Amino acid sequence: MHDDAAAGAEVAVLRLGHRPGRDERMTTHVGLTARALGADRVWIPDNAGQSRDTVADITDRFGGPFEVDLTDSPKAIIRNWEGQVVHLTMYGERVQDVEGEIRERHRDGESVLVVVGSEKVSFDVYEEADWNVGVTNQPHSEVAGLAVFLDRLFEGDELESDWEDAEQRVVPMATGKRVVPAESEEDGGAGSVGDVDPESES
Amino acid sequence: MHDDAAAGAEVAVLRLGHRPGRDERMTTHVGLTARALGADRVWIPDNAGQSRDTVADITDRFGGPFEVDLTDSPKAIIRNWEGQVVHLTMYGERVQDVEGEIRERHRDGESVLVVVGSEKVSFDVYEEADWNVGVTNQPHSEVAGLAVFLDRLFEGDELESDWEDAEQRVVPMATGKRVVPAESEEDGGAGSVGDVDPESES
Repeated sequence: MHDDAAAGAEVAVLRLGHRPGRDERMTTHVGLTARALGADRVWIPDNAGQSRDTVADITDRFGGPFEVDLTDSPKAIIRNWEGQVVHLTMYGERVQDVEGEIRERHRDGESVLVVVGSEKVSFDVYEEADWNVGVTNQPHSEVAGLAVFLDRLFEGDELESDWEDAEQRVVPMATGKRVVPAESEEDGGAGSVGDVDPESES
Repeated sequence: MHDDAAAGAEVAVLRLGHRPGRDERMTTHVGLTARALGADRVWIPDNAGQSRDTVADITDRFGGPFEVDLTDSPKAIIRNWEGQVVHLTMYGERVQDVEGEIRERHRDGESVLVVVGSEKVSFDVYEEADWNVGVTNQPHSEVAGLAVFLDRLFEGDELESDWEDAEQRVVPMATGKRVVPAESEEDGGAGSVGDVDPESES
Protein backbone atom coordinates (compact mmCIF):
# COMPACT_ATOMS: atom_id res chain seq x y z
CA MET A 1 0.00 0.00 0.00
CA HIS A 2 1.07 3.60 -0.49
CA ASP A 3 2.41 4.06 3.02
CA ASP A 4 4.01 0.63 3.16
CA ALA A 5 5.61 1.14 -0.22
CA ALA A 6 7.92 3.70 1.32
CA ALA A 7 8.98 1.05 3.83
CA GLY A 8 9.74 -1.38 1.03
CA ALA A 9 7.03 -3.93 1.69
CA GLU A 10 5.59 -3.75 -1.78
CA VAL A 11 2.39 -5.49 -2.80
CA ALA A 12 2.23 -6.32 -6.50
CA VAL A 13 -0.33 -8.18 -8.57
CA LEU A 14 0.49 -10.40 -11.53
CA ARG A 15 -2.22 -11.34 -13.98
CA LEU A 16 -1.47 -14.66 -15.69
CA GLY A 17 -2.90 -15.27 -19.14
CA HIS A 18 -5.03 -13.06 -21.34
CA ARG A 19 -7.17 -14.05 -24.29
CA PRO A 20 -7.65 -10.91 -26.40
CA GLY A 21 -11.29 -10.09 -26.98
CA ARG A 22 -12.49 -12.52 -24.35
CA ASP A 23 -10.50 -11.34 -21.31
CA GLU A 24 -10.28 -7.58 -21.94
CA ARG A 25 -12.63 -6.52 -19.21
CA MET A 26 -11.53 -9.11 -16.65
CA THR A 27 -7.90 -8.07 -17.07
CA THR A 28 -8.87 -4.40 -16.84
CA HIS A 29 -10.86 -5.11 -13.69
CA VAL A 30 -7.94 -7.02 -12.15
CA GLY A 31 -5.77 -3.95 -12.75
CA LEU A 32 -8.30 -1.43 -11.45
CA THR A 33 -9.05 -3.57 -8.41
CA ALA A 34 -5.35 -3.91 -7.62
CA ARG A 35 -5.03 -0.12 -7.75
CA ALA A 36 -8.20 0.73 -5.81
CA LEU A 37 -7.56 -1.80 -3.05
CA GLY A 38 -4.04 -0.86 -2.14
CA ALA A 39 -1.57 -2.75 -4.33
CA ASP A 40 1.41 -0.76 -5.56
CA ARG A 41 1.58 -2.18 -9.07
CA VAL A 42 0.18 -4.68 -11.50
CA TRP A 43 1.74 -6.66 -14.32
CA ILE A 44 -0.53 -7.80 -17.11
CA PRO A 45 0.25 -9.92 -20.17
CA ASP A 46 1.80 -8.11 -23.10
CA ASN A 47 -1.17 -8.83 -25.35
CA ALA A 48 -3.41 -6.78 -23.06
CA GLY A 49 -2.31 -3.31 -24.10
CA GLN A 50 -5.84 -1.97 -24.06
CA SER A 51 -6.31 -2.97 -20.43
CA ARG A 52 -2.97 -1.38 -19.60
CA ASP A 53 -4.08 1.88 -21.23
CA THR A 54 -7.35 1.96 -19.28
CA VAL A 55 -5.62 1.37 -15.95
CA ALA A 56 -2.98 4.00 -16.73
CA ASP A 57 -5.67 6.49 -17.71
CA ILE A 58 -7.57 5.94 -14.46
CA THR A 59 -4.33 6.40 -12.53
CA ASP A 60 -3.69 9.69 -14.36
CA ARG A 61 -7.16 10.95 -13.53
CA PHE A 62 -7.69 9.57 -10.02
CA GLY A 63 -4.13 9.41 -8.73
CA GLY A 64 -1.48 7.03 -7.55
CA PRO A 65 1.16 6.02 -6.91
CA PHE A 66 0.37 2.95 -8.99
CA GLU A 67 2.32 1.26 -11.75
CA VAL A 68 0.84 -0.78 -14.56
CA ASP A 69 3.20 -2.65 -16.85
CA LEU A 70 3.02 -5.28 -19.53
CA THR A 71 5.16 -8.38 -19.23
CA ASP A 72 6.09 -11.14 -21.64
CA SER A 73 7.71 -13.25 -18.92
CA PRO A 74 5.30 -13.65 -16.00
CA LYS A 75 7.02 -16.80 -14.79
CA ALA A 76 10.32 -14.97 -14.48
CA ILE A 77 8.56 -12.41 -12.28
CA ILE A 78 7.35 -15.21 -10.03
CA ARG A 79 10.70 -16.98 -10.01
CA ASN A 80 12.68 -13.84 -9.23
CA TRP A 81 10.31 -12.35 -6.67
CA GLU A 82 12.03 -11.53 -3.41
CA GLY A 83 9.27 -12.00 -0.91
CA GLN A 84 6.10 -14.03 -0.64
CA VAL A 85 4.34 -15.32 -3.74
CA VAL A 86 0.62 -15.83 -3.12
CA HIS A 87 -1.25 -17.64 -5.89
CA LEU A 88 -5.01 -17.25 -5.58
CA THR A 89 -6.79 -20.45 -6.59
CA MET A 90 -9.97 -22.23 -5.58
CA TYR A 91 -7.82 -25.31 -4.89
CA GLY A 92 -5.65 -23.59 -2.31
CA GLU A 93 -5.59 -23.37 1.46
CA ARG A 94 -8.42 -21.43 3.05
CA VAL A 95 -7.67 -17.71 3.16
CA GLN A 96 -8.96 -17.47 6.71
CA ASP A 97 -6.39 -20.07 7.78
CA VAL A 98 -3.30 -18.50 6.21
CA GLU A 99 -3.94 -14.76 5.93
CA GLY A 100 -2.59 -14.09 9.42
CA GLU A 101 0.87 -15.42 8.65
CA ILE A 102 1.01 -13.73 5.25
CA ARG A 103 0.01 -10.43 6.83
CA GLU A 104 2.50 -10.77 9.64
CA ARG A 105 5.37 -11.44 7.25
CA HIS A 106 4.27 -8.50 5.11
CA ARG A 107 4.28 -6.24 8.14
CA ASP A 108 7.73 -7.52 8.99
CA GLY A 109 8.91 -6.17 5.65
CA GLU A 110 8.38 -9.03 3.19
CA SER A 111 6.87 -7.92 -0.08
CA VAL A 112 3.92 -9.81 -1.56
CA LEU A 113 3.28 -10.86 -5.15
CA VAL A 114 -0.35 -11.83 -5.65
CA VAL A 115 -0.78 -14.07 -8.71
CA VAL A 116 -4.21 -14.33 -10.33
CA GLY A 117 -4.89 -16.63 -13.26
CA SER A 118 -7.44 -16.58 -16.02
CA GLU A 119 -7.52 -19.78 -18.03
CA LYS A 120 -5.98 -22.87 -16.51
CA VAL A 121 -2.80 -22.17 -14.61
CA SER A 122 0.11 -24.52 -15.20
CA PHE A 123 1.26 -26.67 -12.34
CA ASP A 124 4.66 -25.05 -11.97
CA VAL A 125 2.90 -21.91 -10.70
CA TYR A 126 1.39 -23.97 -7.88
CA GLU A 127 4.84 -25.31 -7.08
CA GLU A 128 6.66 -22.01 -7.37
CA ALA A 129 4.18 -20.16 -5.12
CA ASP A 130 4.86 -19.88 -1.40
CA TRP A 131 1.13 -19.93 -0.84
CA ASN A 132 -1.75 -21.30 -2.85
CA VAL A 133 -4.75 -19.59 -1.32
CA GLY A 134 -8.48 -20.05 -1.88
CA VAL A 135 -10.88 -17.21 -1.20
CA THR A 136 -13.45 -19.93 -0.70
CA ASN A 137 -12.89 -23.26 -2.43
CA GLN A 138 -15.77 -22.45 -4.75
CA PRO A 139 -15.52 -21.37 -8.38
CA HIS A 140 -16.23 -17.67 -8.72
CA SER A 141 -14.11 -14.78 -9.98
CA GLU A 142 -10.43 -13.89 -9.91
CA VAL A 143 -11.46 -10.25 -9.45
CA ALA A 144 -13.55 -11.11 -6.38
CA GLY A 145 -10.79 -13.27 -4.94
CA LEU A 146 -8.21 -10.53 -5.42
CA ALA A 147 -10.48 -7.93 -3.83
CA VAL A 148 -11.20 -9.97 -0.72
CA PHE A 149 -7.57 -11.01 -0.37
CA LEU A 150 -6.28 -7.42 -0.53
CA ASP A 151 -8.95 -6.14 1.86
CA ARG A 152 -7.94 -8.85 4.33
CA LEU A 153 -4.20 -8.40 3.84
CA PHE A 154 -4.52 -4.69 4.64
CA GLU A 155 -7.33 -5.19 7.16
CA GLY A 156 -9.27 -2.36 5.56
CA ASP A 157 -6.49 0.22 5.85
CA GLU A 158 -6.43 0.43 2.05
CA LEU A 159 -9.81 2.18 2.18
CA GLU A 160 -8.14 5.15 3.85
CA SER A 161 -5.51 5.65 1.12
CA ASP A 162 -4.55 9.15 0.06
CA TRP A 163 -4.16 9.55 -3.67
CA GLU A 164 -1.38 11.66 -5.12
CA ASP A 165 -1.30 13.59 -8.39
CA ALA A 166 -4.97 13.07 -9.10
CA GLU A 167 -6.87 15.34 -11.44
CA GLN A 168 -10.21 14.68 -9.81
CA ARG A 169 -11.77 12.91 -6.90
CA VAL A 170 -15.19 11.66 -5.92
CA VAL A 171 -16.87 13.14 -2.86
CA PRO A 172 -18.76 10.36 -1.04
CA MET A 173 -22.50 11.11 -0.95
CA ALA A 174 -25.60 9.46 0.46
CA THR A 175 -27.45 10.20 -2.80
CA GLY A 176 -26.06 11.54 -6.05
CA LYS A 177 -22.73 11.90 -7.79
CA ARG A 178 -20.10 14.49 -7.09
CA VAL A 179 -16.69 14.70 -8.72
CA VAL A 180 -14.47 17.67 -7.93
CA PRO A 181 -10.99 18.80 -8.95
CA ALA A 182 -8.52 16.89 -6.82
CA GLU A 183 -7.05 19.96 -5.16
CA SER A 184 -10.49 21.08 -4.01
CA GLU A 185 -11.28 20.97 -0.30
CA GLU A 186 -14.91 20.70 -1.17
CA ASP A 187 -16.91 17.96 0.47
CA GLY A 188 -20.32 18.36 -1.02
CA GLY A 189 -21.09 21.98 -1.95
CA ALA A 190 -21.02 22.98 -5.60
CA GLY A 191 -21.79 21.08 -8.76
CA SER A 192 -20.17 18.01 -10.17
CA VAL A 193 -17.56 18.26 -12.90
CA GLY A 194 -18.85 15.19 -14.64
CA ASP A 195 -19.64 11.56 -14.69
CA VAL A 196 -17.04 8.83 -14.65
CA ASP A 197 -17.03 5.68 -16.70
CA PRO A 198 -13.81 3.76 -16.11
CA GLU A 199 -14.29 1.90 -19.34
CA SER A 200 -15.45 4.65 -21.63
CA GLU A 201 -12.13 4.30 -23.42
CA SER A 202 -12.41 0.60 -24.07
CA MET B 1 -26.29 -16.55 4.09
CA HIS B 2 -27.40 -20.15 4.32
CA ASP B 3 -27.90 -20.14 8.07
CA ASP B 4 -29.46 -16.69 8.14
CA ALA B 5 -31.78 -17.60 5.31
CA ALA B 6 -33.64 -19.91 7.65
CA ALA B 7 -34.15 -16.94 9.96
CA GLY B 8 -35.57 -14.90 7.09
CA ALA B 9 -32.82 -12.33 6.79
CA GLU B 10 -32.20 -12.98 3.13
CA VAL B 11 -29.34 -11.42 1.20
CA ALA B 12 -30.02 -11.08 -2.51
CA VAL B 13 -28.02 -9.54 -5.32
CA LEU B 14 -29.52 -7.71 -8.29
CA ARG B 15 -27.43 -7.13 -11.38
CA LEU B 16 -28.60 -4.05 -13.30
CA GLY B 17 -27.99 -3.91 -17.03
CA HIS B 18 -26.36 -6.42 -19.34
CA ARG B 19 -24.96 -5.85 -22.81
CA PRO B 20 -24.92 -9.23 -24.55
CA GLY B 21 -21.48 -10.18 -25.80
CA ARG B 22 -19.76 -7.45 -23.86
CA ASP B 23 -21.00 -8.19 -20.32
CA GLU B 24 -21.30 -11.99 -20.39
CA ARG B 25 -18.37 -12.73 -18.14
CA MET B 26 -18.92 -9.83 -15.76
CA THR B 27 -22.54 -10.85 -15.22
CA THR B 28 -21.49 -14.48 -14.74
CA HIS B 29 -18.87 -13.40 -12.23
CA VAL B 30 -21.39 -11.27 -10.34
CA GLY B 31 -23.59 -14.35 -10.03
CA LEU B 32 -20.80 -16.72 -9.02
CA THR B 33 -19.41 -14.22 -6.52
CA ALA B 34 -22.85 -13.73 -4.98
CA ARG B 35 -23.14 -17.49 -4.54
CA ALA B 36 -19.60 -18.13 -3.27
CA LEU B 37 -19.64 -15.26 -0.79
CA GLY B 38 -22.86 -16.02 1.00
CA ALA B 39 -25.77 -14.39 -0.81
CA ASP B 40 -28.93 -16.49 -1.07
CA ARG B 41 -29.90 -15.53 -4.60
CA VAL B 42 -29.12 -13.37 -7.60
CA TRP B 43 -31.30 -11.76 -10.23
CA ILE B 44 -29.73 -11.01 -13.57
CA PRO B 45 -31.20 -9.30 -16.63
CA ASP B 46 -33.36 -11.45 -18.89
CA ASN B 47 -30.97 -11.07 -21.81
CA ALA B 48 -28.23 -12.84 -19.83
CA GLY B 49 -29.49 -16.40 -20.14
CA GLN B 50 -26.01 -17.77 -20.73
CA SER B 51 -24.77 -16.32 -17.44
CA ARG B 52 -27.81 -17.74 -15.69
CA ASP B 53 -27.05 -21.20 -17.10
CA THR B 54 -23.43 -21.08 -15.94
CA VAL B 55 -24.37 -20.04 -12.40
CA ALA B 56 -27.09 -22.70 -12.23
CA ASP B 57 -24.64 -25.34 -13.45
CA ILE B 58 -22.07 -24.40 -10.81
CA THR B 59 -24.79 -24.57 -8.16
CA ASP B 60 -25.77 -28.05 -9.36
CA ARG B 61 -22.19 -29.23 -9.17
CA PHE B 62 -20.91 -27.43 -6.07
CA GLY B 63 -24.09 -27.04 -4.05
CA GLY B 64 -26.44 -24.49 -2.63
CA PRO B 65 -28.87 -23.39 -1.55
CA PHE B 66 -28.62 -20.62 -4.14
CA GLU B 67 -31.17 -19.26 -6.58
CA VAL B 68 -30.39 -17.64 -9.89
CA ASP B 69 -33.21 -16.04 -11.82
CA LEU B 70 -33.69 -13.78 -14.79
CA THR B 71 -35.75 -10.63 -14.42
CA ASP B 72 -37.25 -8.20 -16.90
CA SER B 73 -38.24 -5.74 -14.18
CA PRO B 74 -35.24 -4.99 -11.96
CA LYS B 75 -36.69 -1.70 -10.81
CA ALA B 76 -39.82 -3.42 -9.53
CA ILE B 77 -37.58 -5.70 -7.47
CA ILE B 78 -35.93 -2.65 -5.93
CA ARG B 79 -39.22 -0.85 -5.39
CA ASN B 80 -40.93 -3.82 -3.79
CA TRP B 81 -38.02 -5.00 -1.65
CA GLU B 82 -38.96 -5.38 1.99
CA GLY B 83 -35.71 -4.64 3.73
CA GLN B 84 -32.59 -2.63 3.02
CA VAL B 85 -31.60 -1.77 -0.54
CA VAL B 86 -27.84 -1.25 -0.84
CA HIS B 87 -26.67 0.17 -4.16
CA LEU B 88 -22.92 -0.23 -4.66
CA THR B 89 -21.47 2.79 -6.44
CA MET B 90 -18.16 4.64 -6.41
CA TYR B 91 -20.14 7.81 -5.68
CA GLY B 92 -21.66 6.47 -2.47
CA GLU B 93 -20.87 6.73 1.21
CA ARG B 94 -17.74 4.98 2.36
CA VAL B 95 -18.38 1.32 3.13
CA GLN B 96 -16.33 1.52 6.31
CA ASP B 97 -18.64 4.27 7.57
CA VAL B 98 -21.97 2.56 6.94
CA GLU B 99 -21.36 -1.20 7.02
CA GLY B 100 -21.89 -1.40 10.78
CA GLU B 101 -25.45 -0.12 10.63
CA ILE B 102 -26.32 -2.23 7.60
CA ARG B 103 -24.93 -5.32 9.33
CA GLU B 104 -26.75 -4.57 12.56
CA ARG B 105 -30.08 -4.17 10.80
CA HIS B 106 -29.44 -7.38 8.88
CA ARG B 107 -28.75 -9.24 12.10
CA ASP B 108 -31.94 -7.80 13.52
CA GLY B 109 -33.80 -9.56 10.73
CA GLU B 110 -33.89 -7.06 7.87
CA SER B 111 -33.13 -8.61 4.52
CA VAL B 112 -30.62 -6.96 2.19
CA LEU B 113 -30.82 -6.39 -1.56
CA VAL B 114 -27.40 -5.54 -2.99
CA VAL B 115 -27.69 -3.73 -6.32
CA VAL B 116 -24.72 -3.72 -8.69
CA GLY B 117 -24.75 -1.82 -11.96
CA SER B 118 -22.89 -2.29 -15.21
CA GLU B 119 -23.30 0.62 -17.58
CA LYS B 120 -24.51 3.91 -16.17
CA VAL B 121 -27.16 3.52 -13.52
CA SER B 122 -30.17 5.80 -13.75
CA PHE B 123 -30.68 8.33 -11.02
CA ASP B 124 -33.88 6.80 -9.68
CA VAL B 125 -31.84 3.84 -8.44
CA TYR B 126 -29.78 6.22 -6.32
CA GLU B 127 -32.98 7.71 -4.95
CA GLU B 128 -34.76 4.42 -4.40
CA ALA B 129 -31.82 2.85 -2.54
CA ASP B 130 -31.65 3.06 1.24
CA TRP B 131 -27.89 3.13 0.94
CA ASN B 132 -25.55 4.18 -1.82
CA VAL B 133 -22.26 2.64 -0.79
CA GLY B 134 -18.76 2.98 -2.22
CA VAL B 135 -16.21 0.21 -1.74
CA THR B 136 -13.63 2.94 -2.18
CA ASN B 137 -14.63 6.03 -4.16
CA GLN B 138 -12.33 4.88 -6.94
CA PRO B 139 -13.36 3.35 -10.26
CA HIS B 140 -12.70 -0.38 -10.26
CA SER B 141 -15.00 -3.38 -10.63
CA GLU B 142 -18.55 -4.20 -9.62
CA VAL B 143 -17.40 -7.76 -8.93
CA ALA B 144 -14.69 -6.55 -6.56
CA GLY B 145 -17.09 -4.18 -4.83
CA LEU B 146 -19.67 -6.92 -4.36
CA ALA B 147 -17.06 -9.32 -2.98
CA VAL B 148 -15.69 -6.91 -0.41
CA PHE B 149 -19.17 -5.78 0.60
CA LEU B 150 -20.41 -9.34 1.21
CA ASP B 151 -17.25 -10.34 3.08
CA ARG B 152 -17.72 -7.32 5.34
CA LEU B 153 -21.47 -7.78 5.76
CA PHE B 154 -20.93 -11.35 6.95
CA GLU B 155 -17.63 -10.57 8.69
CA GLY B 156 -16.06 -13.61 7.08
CA ASP B 157 -18.66 -16.09 8.31
CA GLU B 158 -19.57 -16.79 4.67
CA LEU B 159 -16.22 -18.56 4.28
CA GLU B 160 -17.44 -21.27 6.65
CA SER B 161 -20.60 -22.08 4.67
CA ASP B 162 -21.73 -25.66 4.31
CA TRP B 163 -22.93 -26.53 0.84
CA GLU B 164 -25.93 -28.78 0.35
CA ASP B 165 -26.71 -31.11 -2.55
CA ALA B 166 -23.30 -30.75 -4.13
CA GLU B 167 -21.93 -33.33 -6.52
CA GLN B 168 -18.33 -32.50 -5.76
CA ARG B 169 -16.18 -30.39 -3.53
CA VAL B 170 -12.64 -29.08 -3.52
CA VAL B 171 -10.30 -30.17 -0.75
CA PRO B 172 -8.09 -27.21 0.24
CA MET B 173 -4.42 -28.00 -0.42
CA ALA B 174 -1.10 -26.23 0.02
CA THR B 175 -0.02 -27.42 -3.44
CA GLY B 176 -2.08 -29.15 -6.08
CA LYS B 177 -5.71 -29.69 -6.97
CA ARG B 178 -8.07 -32.12 -5.37
CA VAL B 179 -11.77 -32.49 -6.16
CA VAL B 180 -13.71 -35.29 -4.50
CA PRO B 181 -17.31 -36.49 -4.57
CA ALA B 182 -19.28 -34.28 -2.22
CA GLU B 183 -20.30 -37.07 0.13
CA SER B 184 -16.68 -38.07 0.63
CA GLU B 185 -15.10 -37.48 4.03
CA GLU B 186 -11.75 -37.39 2.35
CA ASP B 187 -9.46 -34.50 3.14
CA GLY B 188 -6.47 -35.12 0.97
CA GLY B 189 -5.86 -38.82 0.41
CA ALA B 190 -6.77 -40.32 -2.93
CA GLY B 191 -6.78 -38.91 -6.43
CA SER B 192 -8.69 -36.03 -7.87
CA VAL B 193 -11.83 -36.58 -9.90
CA GLY B 194 -10.98 -33.80 -12.28
CA ASP B 195 -10.27 -30.21 -12.98
CA VAL B 196 -12.84 -27.44 -12.73
CA ASP B 197 -13.33 -24.58 -15.10
CA PRO B 198 -16.37 -22.56 -14.08
CA GLU B 199 -16.65 -21.13 -17.55
CA SER B 200 -15.97 -24.17 -19.67
CA GLU B 201 -19.62 -24.06 -20.66
CA SER B 202 -19.61 -20.50 -21.88
